[in-house]
Amino acid sequence: MESPPLFDLKTYLQAKQEQVNDELVRSLPPAESSRIADAMRYSVLAGGKRLRPVLCLAAAEAVGGRSEDVINTAVAIELIHTYSLIHDDLPAMDDDVLRRGKPTCHVAYDEATAILTGDALLTLAFQLLASPEDTADVPSDKRLQVIHAVAAAAGHKGMIGGQMADIGSEGNRIALSRLEQLHMMKTGALINAAITTGAILGGATSEQIRHLHKYAQNIGLAFQIIDDILNVEGDPALLGKAVGTDEEKKKSTYPALLGLVESRKLAASRVKEALQALEYFDKKADSLRAIAKYVIDRKR
Amino acid sequence: MESPPLFDLKTYLQAKQEQVNDELVRSLPPAESSRIADAMRYSVLAGGKRLRPVLCLAAAEAVGGRSEDVINTAVAIELIHTYSLIHDDLPAMDDDVLRRGKPTCHVAYDEATAILTGDALLTLAFQLLASPEDTADVPSDKRLQVIHAVAAAAGHKGMIGGQMADIGSEGNRIALSRLEQLHMMKTGALINAAITTGAILGGATSEQIRHLHKYAQNIGLAFQIIDDILNVEGDPALLGKAVGTDEEKKKSTYPALLGLVESRKLAASRVKEALQALEYFDKKADSLRAIAKYVIDRKR
Repeated sequence: MESPPLFDLKTYLQAKQEQVNDELVRSLPPAESSRIADAMRYSVLAGGKRLRPVLCLAAAEAVGGRSEDVINTAVAIELIHTYSLIHDDLPAMDDDVLRRGKPTCHVAYDEATAILTGDALLTLAFQLLASPEDTADVPSDKRLQVIHAVAAAAGHKGMIGGQMADIGSEGNRIALSRLEQLHMMKTGALINAAITTGAILGGATSEQIRHLHKYAQNIGLAFQIIDDILNVEGDPALLGKAVGTDEEKKKSTYPALLGLVESRKLAASRVKEALQALEYFDKKADSLRAIAKYVIDRKR
Repeated sequence: MESPPLFDLKTYLQAKQEQVNDELVRSLPPAESSRIADAMRYSVLAGGKRLRPVLCLAAAEAVGGRSEDVINTAVAIELIHTYSLIHDDLPAMDDDVLRRGKPTCHVAYDEATAILTGDALLTLAFQLLASPEDTADVPSDKRLQVIHAVAAAAGHKGMIGGQMADIGSEGNRIALSRLEQLHMMKTGALINAAITTGAILGGATSEQIRHLHKYAQNIGLAFQIIDDILNVEGDPALLGKAVGTDEEKKKSTYPALLGLVESRKLAASRVKEALQALEYFDKKADSLRAIAKYVIDRKR
């Protein structure tokens, strides 16, 4: 008789994605209450892996925290991620027409609506993080700490700064170290915030946060390398977005700088380092371990 | 011998604007640290009346609060106001080329930079509101209350919702009640948040907040009516932006719906109501009283 798998990631992801989706629906304005409400729902509820909120929940679990205390923050981070996609897809930026298998927000609505919808989701995220209706059993100063961490990660020294640098690098070949720095900001910062805030709200010690931060840095970079690889050889039907766009725009990417084989190796070594950072934790961190492997094996 | 004027608004405004500008400079990323930092500074430090932060400080004063406890919030609200101007000026929205007497952000930089700069200022506002470096002597749960109020005012049911409705109304003649509702969201909500959060942080009682809310509602509407009037008969050199643009876009405005004379009367009656709401307060509310008169007399 075969022994059962150590951790059933598929079932875990489905359960967490469902929990996140339910809470997203509750947090968004009701359908058909206004054009902006419809556009917000359209973009957020279009699907998506929900990687950041799941990481947030898993990080809380790893330190023995309760998901009730984290779900609100997990959802806020997904709203911020979605807003960033809407704005990145705009004609003035990446000019993408397909996202999560559906027309991008400015295609489905119009450009003005897409700009405002992104703005509204970013704003709603902070409204949720400070909501008096949040039933989390977390002291107010810890909630302020979380808001500050999320804003810093999403801001001009984090995600937005990374997107700005990314646009600036189009057509220019940049050094690997610069590419890594850029991705640490563009993708890594919010992934790191998801994990760190999950840990904070879950009651982590500073030593636990230190290890989770190392996990986050590595997982974030591995995620971005695979993203670059999928833009070369991924299946658009599975990805729900176009491929080959990086090359078209002459973007500096890991495959462009290192080739596919070396890029895969680099991603694998990052995942290995992420797993090493988790050696400090017991089996409550199994979900984080499984996600680390998923990040590199994913097809979408 | 003449008696001194009851309240020297000009000196008051200059002092407060200076205080706000100093704190804005401190809160923004340093110049030339990145393209996004430069664009943030360009738009925020382009001047401006600083009406919202001054109202925030004056509301705190009116209830006997200390400006040190409010300045951070006042600055955050000005960042949000500036981001909204940058996004509203974009080609996909109002397509304006002049703001505060200088080329708009997307003209001075480019469209992608302007979108990201707006995003960065909105995000920085919340980072400031939750900053551990804020020396305000205010309990954390009150700070959360302020963050929530600011986000709600700036969001899809407030400022962003108003801008969305404003775009939707272009070319359509809408009813006066609808126009009022639209402006309550687009301009009124953030002005109201500036006053209310100033009061909260200044230690206001709920009765004081109730009166200040009534003041805010009236001042906000009077401000918008005058804005509409200045778009008809104002001096572009003083305003620092183009006039006649509302008519070009066939926007529903107070002058379009009521004519200039009736619009002026309506603004005056709103200011009168605002002043009545202040009868509850002693002379510590003199700055708010003076600002109410300024709102209607202003030329820019």
